[in-house]
Amino acid sequence: MTLPKEVRIGLIGYGFMGRAHSNAFLKAGHFFPLPCRLVLKAVCGRNADNARAFAERWGYEAVETDWRALVKRADVDLVDIASPNDTHAEIAVAAAEAGKMVLCEKPLARNVAEAERMVEAVEKAGVANMVWYNYRRVPAVTLAKQLIDEGRLGRVFHYRAKFLQDWTISKDLPQGGAALWRLDVNVAGSGVTGDLLAHCIDTAMWLNGPITQVTAMTETFIKERKHTLTGRVEPVGIDDACAFLARFANGSLATFEATRYARGHKALYTLEINGEHASIFWDLHDLHRLQYFDHRDQGIVRGWRSIHVTDGDHPYMKQWWVPGLQIGYEHTFVHQIADFLSALARGEQASPTFRDALATEYVTDAVLRSAASGSWEPVRQIAK
Amino acid sequence: MTLPKEVRIGLIGYGFMGRAHSNAFLKAGHFFPLPCRLVLKAVCGRNADNARAFAERWGYEAVETDWRALVKRADVDLVDIASPNDTHAEIAVAAAEAGKMVLCEKPLARNVAEAERMVEAVEKAGVANMVWYNYRRVPAVTLAKQLIDEGRLGRVFHYRAKFLQDWTISKDLPQGGAALWRLDVNVAGSGVTGDLLAHCIDTAMWLNGPITQVTAMTETFIKERKHTLTGRVEPVGIDDACAFLARFANGSLATFEATRYARGHKALYTLEINGEHASIFWDLHDLHRLQYFDHRDQGIVRGWRSIHVTDGDHPYMKQWWVPGLQIGYEHTFVHQIADFLSALARGEQASPTFRDALATEYVTDAVLRSAASGSWEPVRQIAK
Amino acid sequence: MTLPKEVRIGLIGYGFMGRAHSNAFLKAGHFFPLPCRLVLKAVCGRNADNARAFAERWGYEAVETDWRALVKRADVDLVDIASPNDTHAEIAVAAAEAGKMVLCEKPLARNVAEAERMVEAVEKAGVANMVWYNYRRVPAVTLAKQLIDEGRLGRVFHYRAKFLQDWTISKDLPQGGAALWRLDVNVAGSGVTGDLLAHCIDTAMWLNGPITQVTAMTETFIKERKHTLTGRVEPVGIDDACAFLARFANGSLATFEATRYARGHKALYTLEINGEHASIFWDLHDLHRLQYFDHRDQGIVRGWRSIHVTDGDHPYMKQWWVPGLQIGYEHTFVHQIADFLSALARGEQASPTFRDALATEYVTDAVLRSAASGSWEPVRQIAK
Amino acid sequence: MTLPKEVRIGLIGYGFMGRAHSNAFLKAGHFFPLPCRLVLKAVCGRNADNARAFAERWGYEAVETDWRALVKRADVDLVDIASPNDTHAEIAVAAAEAGKMVLCEKPLARNVAEAERMVEAVEKAGVANMVWYNYRRVPAVTLAKQLIDEGRLGRVFHYRAKFLQDWTISKDLPQGGAALWRLDVNVAGSGVTGDLLAHCIDTAMWLNGPITQVTAMTETFIKERKHTLTGRVEPVGIDDACAFLARFANGSLATFEATRYARGHKALYTLEINGEHASIFWDLHDLHRLQYFDHRDQGIVRGWRSIHVTDGDHPYMKQWWVPGLQIGYEHTFVHQIADFLSALARGEQASPTFRDALATEYVTDAVLRSAASGSWEPVRQIAK
Repeated sequence: MTLPKEVRIGLIGYGFMGRAHSNAFLKAGHFFPLPCRLVLKAVCGRNADNARAFAERWGYEAVETDWRALVKRADVDLVDIASPNDTHAEIAVAAAEAGKMVLCEKPLARNVAEAERMVEAVEKAGVANMVWYNYRRVPAVTLAKQLIDEGRLGRVFHYRAKFLQDWTISKDLPQGGAALWRLDVNVAGSGVTGDLLAHCIDTAMWLNGPITQVTAMTETFIKERKHTLTGRVEPVGIDDACAFLARFANGSLATFEATRYARGHKALYTLEINGEHASIFWDLHDLHRLQYFDHRDQGIVRGWRSIHVTDGDHPYMKQWWVPGLQIGYEHTFVHQIADFLSALARGEQASPTFRDALATEYVTDAVLRSAASGSWEPVRQIAK
Repeated sequence: MTLPKEVRIGLIGYGFMGRAHSNAFLKAGHFFPLPCRLVLKAVCGRNADNARAFAERWGYEAVETDWRALVKRADVDLVDIASPNDTHAEIAVAAAEAGKMVLCEKPLARNVAEAERMVEAVEKAGVANMVWYNYRRVPAVTLAKQLIDEGRLGRVFHYRAKFLQDWTISKDLPQGGAALWRLDVNVAGSGVTGDLLAHCIDTAMWLNGPITQVTAMTETFIKERKHTLTGRVEPVGIDDACAFLARFANGSLATFEATRYARGHKALYTLEINGEHASIFWDLHDLHRLQYFDHRDQGIVRGWRSIHVTDGDHPYMKQWWVPGLQIGYEHTFVHQIADFLSALARGEQASPTFRDALATEYVTDAVLRSAASGSWEPVRQIAK
Repeated sequence: MTLPKEVRIGLIGYGFMGRAHSNAFLKAGHFFPLPCRLVLKAVCGRNADNARAFAERWGYEAVETDWRALVKRADVDLVDIASPNDTHAEIAVAAAEAGKMVLCEKPLARNVAEAERMVEAVEKAGVANMVWYNYRRVPAVTLAKQLIDEGRLGRVFHYRAKFLQDWTISKDLPQGGAALWRLDVNVAGSGVTGDLLAHCIDTAMWLNGPITQVTAMTETFIKERKHTLTGRVEPVGIDDACAFLARFANGSLATFEATRYARGHKALYTLEINGEHASIFWDLHDLHRLQYFDHRDQGIVRGWRSIHVTDGDHPYMKQWWVPGLQIGYEHTFVHQIADFLSALARGEQASPTFRDALATEYVTDAVLRSAASGSWEPVRQIAK
Repeated sequence: MTLPKEVRIGLIGYGFMGRAHSNAFLKAGHFFPLPCRLVLKAVCGRNADNARAFAERWGYEAVETDWRALVKRADVDLVDIASPNDTHAEIAVAAAEAGKMVLCEKPLARNVAEAERMVEAVEKAGVANMVWYNYRRVPAVTLAKQLIDEGRLGRVFHYRAKFLQDWTISKDLPQGGAALWRLDVNVAGSGVTGDLLAHCIDTAMWLNGPITQVTAMTETFIKERKHTLTGRVEPVGIDDACAFLARFANGSLATFEATRYARGHKALYTLEINGEHASIFWDLHDLHRLQYFDHRDQGIVRGWRSIHVTDGDHPYMKQWWVPGLQIGYEHTFVHQIADFLSALARGEQASPTFRDALATEYVTDAVLRSAASGSWEPVRQIAK
């Protein structure tokens, strides 16, 4: 995999993630020393007017309404998939076959079968690939990884993660269609398991290694919702909530939970890891802080340290402002694209690749199987 | 059950809980209008010197070294069991048969069989009885109960509770003997399940109703420890950590977790309940605060409210100091004995009675069975 | 000053502070190894019925309605003044002259003249004496003192303290009479300056040494209130709010503020001290926590540490429960009486003595003078 | 003042603020519907290489090394002053005289005389003008303004603001030169008063109206530092710390404090306002949260609400991501330029104009005079 001097981007999807990615493409070079130039070549969306408006606002040179056309463009080097989950596999495979670099929004796919096909395609084509599990690149989370890699925690006993939201509690919210495809199981593949727990699992395995077995429960609190596209009240196929217990390969125990029915929490992704010597806690609602407890501190002044992760020696922060001034959600995407490019310039791939993300698919698959079976389910492991 | 003008107390056990209960007996009348006088009649402990020193410090009139003698004393009306778990059943049954009121430290017993015998004994004898699940009487927790009973939450979707400690991480800590009987499975019955989760379960069912099924995992991180009494390295029989998923009868989902291996947490009992309209969170480390979120607040000023539960209209607080000045752990016992007596004066029994506590035993029993079987286990329900 | 085997207490005043002190007298011996026995001999209050009810509830053996009678009792060794400020001087002087030990609620007096008379009286009589500036004995505050004395802060640059309340905002609140004497300048001497800032100043000088000069402003927001005793609307003579800037002898700068008009704060006493190497913050609303920042921590994991001051190696805490279980407001008084007695047993006096408290009177006096003059005012220093 | 279809920007200064402003110019149009296009026409810096590198990174079309040349360019419509304080007045006057719109970093000038000249120049020329007091546009602060304007607080009693940093504590830090001109009084005009308190004062008067009088103290803890430009140890002329008491025209009292010697605080700008009915608190270290207390809430559930200001109905937030996902420091500049342009499109000027900022200069001037005189000083008021 070599990196051209100019990487011409073809973006598919102009919703929430299309904006987040475009912002990252534009900002990365202002703050990070990139090994190449990024060009916003084309954006693709089914609605031509919307796509054109988006292209104008963000500076994309061209517009497509059929993703197949975009994937075939000779002037596109990288295809970025920011469209709903049911489109990921087909587009990614086509893009790989067309020799494009492929970036894909998470979750990688709706199910293991799709995900495996995607991994096979990019690896066969030998194209650079990455999945947008952006929370690894919150500076506080990256700092957590650094502290763990330095061995500060000692033997790990516990991991716990939650992703709590409250935006689907109303019975009157429909499913399907533009903004609400996440409630349509055919499009999304699953509910909170693929949408929210996938984030928690990706970070967890990055920080604490492989998960080997799980036992889970899921629930759909609102059983029927009007479908935006059909206009009819239809069964809801997604999981509104999911919790599972897990064991990691390193012997630690874990609890995971996600829901869209936790009143008071907008996007409360929290994680905690307890080791023999030290513990770490992080919370997306105050993403610029890391809580750190080190038992080796002198007893009388021992306590959880609230680290305001905004200093020049904190991950990524030297590139931004001055100590005390925080960055936010969108910056995780900036970090990710910068890392992707600089890794390629070194002849490496930034993580998580499609293969890395397949490991998360194996866990969510085991979780959903366990919720159905009522038993502990083993987790398939990726070949490394 | 009638209440004499003077209740003469016989205390068994002079450790941590013996002190906590004695302090409550002495303070209750200074702050609450009690319907009777409490007299510290006798304390019983196996070590006569220690028992005598305890009696002198706390003002007990007499000392016994055999609990059977204490239970038989004609001048004792109420037997308070603050000795290790393996003594609860035998003492309680004897005390009930002797016609004494019986208070018992939690957990009620080491297992369901013992617990059922105890319930049967106090009910057959018709004596007043109560278990010291003291956390119900933290004013913030009592306030949570009040808010729930007022219907503020609407349909409940989620409950989660944790009790995290970190005091047994060292491999060098022995098991058994005076301060460490909680690590000896023969004395304690179980590890964190009976010690910590029992608290979480008692509060949970008080706030959110019966639990119907569970799936659990347990772990013993340190497999062998020197036993203080035998002097030999022996297998550790308790669970160091336990996590379980649960379903409540009202349709809500739950996660529970307890451990003594969560570095940084001394006694972090937290609980959260998410309803359709409102959510509540509480944390033992800041026990005088209740976090409350009400979705019916106007959108732009909606947020978690940090209620400093120290006002005169908060539960129990009118009896203490002035707003802003907090009480602590020990006061929960004061409240409980005051409630016990005033309920009796009204011809009622304060909760949790032995029968109420049996419901918790049924849950911990199902949890331990599930940890062994790897399957979901139904929870037996008490007859009300 | 020698300590008898039994110290017989005569309490004057049975309000908020009468309860707090009585509770301390009764609890101290249960938790601390006292060098003598405390006997609740007599309580004095102007209303005989109330005094009798109080004596019965708390176990005082006798009742007086004239403080002069109490002071003269041969069976009283220690006079504890818990009555309004306008009675402090006269009682203290009489008690000293009668050879009694004297404890006095803060502030020591209504003004410097009274305070100086009191210091002279106790020192001339050679009787043990102490003022109930209880906040020094919050374990977290005592820990702060310990950390400062160990030299951890280095050169001190800043001190700031606030005491914010919100209980007198209503225009309809009357002044004077039983519960509201704090609003009557003739009884109280001043408003928030003597009531709240006196606490802040006492702690500040204990932690950071003498204050040398101040500039202040005061305000009375509600200019007239009905007087409970006269039934007439009368001018309000107290300061509702007071803020001042100060310089300490050690070169550090300070801001102080107190008010009863800060909506949302019940009793928010906070203090912070910033040194070259470390900083400390404490807050009465979460009194069991100390915030500590040490710049010498490694950069990437540097942050404010939230110390849960409940471990056995924290000041006073070995005597209470187990780590993680907090004590509250009332315990500060328990610690103070225990310290008072154990100091006497060593032939010393616990701080703050009347002389120590006089230093605080000199500061509040300079503050009120500055608020009147609009100029910086020097602070008189006590002879040590 | 009319707004052309395209506003061509000439930026002076490429340091911290040059980056912050450039980022805002580029991002504004992606997130806000702007009434015109922004073109990055030229950047001016004394070092040609650095200026060229900056231009390349950010996309400025041209480079100048003499600000006079930039101001004269016909293809520049707006001059943005992001250079040190000692350059503000001269540049702003020249730009105004050249008929350019003028944006100026805060503080407006080094002193009142310069500031008055600048106001006169822009008003005489009739050119649009604005000062980058960016903290008004933190969504949480804008929300505070909205709540106050809606009258939720009632009569205001107290205002307090602090801006605490700790980056100049080392004696070895030099003064003067590129990054350290803030320590050189000739360049900066003053120390924390102009740098940090100016922010606090601007926000304070925006939220709470005019300040009428002040009494202040300042301190220079490190009296001499090596000067980067001369290489010699020279006296330090700036104030390292400043605190002042103030009275507002609406009768409320205030305390203000800023320092660069508060160990543990990187950029802790906090503000609080206490009204009869409600109070508000905000903290730059968690800038996406607003603390709000409303006494009209029902008593038992009354508490400070922690508002996560990330919802679509919060100021500016509809334009960004989804609820729960926070923005950061840089976004305040985006909001400010968007407001500036949309106000111009309506024929208005966004606040704070140069004249608005002059009011802040009058306060800092009175503060520095008071610190010198030791007396209360009246504050000059701007004509509106």
